[in-house]
Amino acid sequence: MTDAAPALPLVRTVAELRAVVADWRRQGFSVGFVPTMGALHEGHLGLVREAGALADRVVASVFVNPTQFAAHEDLGTYPRQEERDAQLLASAGCALMFAPSVEEMYPQGFATGVTVGGPSQGLETDFRPHFFAGVAVVVAKLLNQARADVAVFGEKDYQQLMVIQQMTRDLDIPTRIVGAATARDGHGLALSSRNAYLSQDELEVARRLNGVLAEAAVQASSRRPLPAVERDAYSALLKAGFERVDYVAVRRAEDLSVFSDGVVDGPGRILAAAWLGRTRLIDNMAVAAPPG
Amino acid sequence: MTDAAPALPLVRTVAELRAVVADWRRQGFSVGFVPTMGALHEGHLGLVREAGALADRVVASVFVNPTQFAAHEDLGTYPRQEERDAQLLASAGCALMFAPSVEEMYPQGFATGVTVGGPSQGLETDFRPHFFAGVAVVVAKLLNQARADVAVFGEKDYQQLMVIQQMTRDLDIPTRIVGAATARDGHGLALSSRNAYLSQDELEVARRLNGVLAEAAVQASSRRPLPAVERDAYSALLKAGFERVDYVAVRRAEDLSVFSDGVVDGPGRILAAAWLGRTRLIDNMAVAAPPG
Repeated sequence: MTDAAPALPLVRTVAELRAVVADWRRQGFSVGFVPTMGALHEGHLGLVREAGALADRVVASVFVNPTQFAAHEDLGTYPRQEERDAQLLASAGCALMFAPSVEEMYPQGFATGVTVGGPSQGLETDFRPHFFAGVAVVVAKLLNQARADVAVFGEKDYQQLMVIQQMTRDLDIPTRIVGAATARDGHGLALSSRNAYLSQDELEVARRLNGVLAEAAVQASSRRPLPAVERDAYSALLKAGFERVDYVAVRRAEDLSVFSDGVVDGPGRILAAAWLGRTRLIDNMAVAAPPG
Repeated sequence: MTDAAPALPLVRTVAELRAVVADWRRQGFSVGFVPTMGALHEGHLGLVREAGALADRVVASVFVNPTQFAAHEDLGTYPRQEERDAQLLASAGCALMFAPSVEEMYPQGFATGVTVGGPSQGLETDFRPHFFAGVAVVVAKLLNQARADVAVFGEKDYQQLMVIQQMTRDLDIPTRIVGAATARDGHGLALSSRNAYLSQDELEVARRLNGVLAEAAVQASSRRPLPAVERDAYSALLKAGFERVDYVAVRRAEDLSVFSDGVVDGPGRILAAAWLGRTRLIDNMAVAAPPG
């Protein structure tokens, strides 16, 4: 955890990754895994530290997965900074960086898809219909490549976390999936690689997302009807300066199913996606079950 | 290999399966796996022996997977004979039988699908459109449950073998997939659990399937145009007494793609599916690449 971090071992092929992990196993070490798309920030480093608390050795992948971007999305401009990422990972206690090429992950003739129902329904899927199919395939591959005991994903992408837990359970992938709390800046803004796209004015607006959700979460916990809670939060986001709101919705925390009575009657989660210029931000937080 | 086979250990849960396999690993044993739907015959036992030649300990699963049967198919009548299966597996050197319930494999809320393109296109898919999706999910699960070094599948279901190899490679499931030659009776009929459905008259017809394919394979290898080869084989099957032919087709052996020039120019495979009464039989065999 110093500025002068040691050089981090880097592998680019699945065979090399497996050789290192197998060597760790022979030495009796448990293995933790943190998949990332690089452009690392303090949020990712928290995931690495969490994995380090749960396992003896941590491997992190850095792979900007093209199959989870739609044609009009920001695959081409998504920030890439591999050397800096390696330094940051080393400083957080990561023992190996796995940075495969697109060809290593999706060789000629690749033909398999993974679809996950349940928690993938609605929310992100309404606006990024191909997203979770891309996520599910790449995460299934990465988990099977790394064969870790535990993998840590951020709650920042809460629906993604739910989808990955569902898939891992359903396909019996023998890795425990752990969610880690969202890292935020001093103003409550969830850390995101995409925050780098924001102008100073946009950043001011972005920092209000968290507060709008917190206020709505309190209302939802007090059994205010969810259509009203969601409508008011939607208006509040526009009033705060967001140019467009894809969704703001309260769902059951455990599987993102809807509260069918229209009020919160157990642990919930409020989730939102909203736009500032060409930048799309997401955030979410817990909605406490009502007392009694 | 005696009539008085020892009792075979049986587990019904994934947790128990993993505990036995983990214990084998601790003892330094490699692990082979043979997935079956039970109703075992000499063909399955050959797969178990093949797995035993490739690994120190062999586990076989017996699970009639409902998701690979369509509503009108024979799920309800598919033969089940668990005690006899256990004896046969033990006699072939199997060390553990895994016979999970449907609830163990597909608990409430199961929501994940696996789709495999490439070799799944056409042939069986034209007539059993949901088949390979069901196969892919259950095999992905079983492979991840057993965590074997090697799994053996019969070439009798050649397209299935290709689909499973594609999926395993694409999802980086760390188990080597091996195909084993089709076991046949003294008349060349491929052994199949569904042969038990055949009357004596139907059995006589069924035994001609192999010969029709062998003749067509010779023609294809000698560069006779494939449309003519396939048309003549189709007619020959009807003339032999099959009531209906779903398909008879020559494809590339490596990935089941079509020979785009309409003649065999490399290793091929001829595959067929045909009906006798309510019984659907499949078979296939190698088509040698033309000389030169």
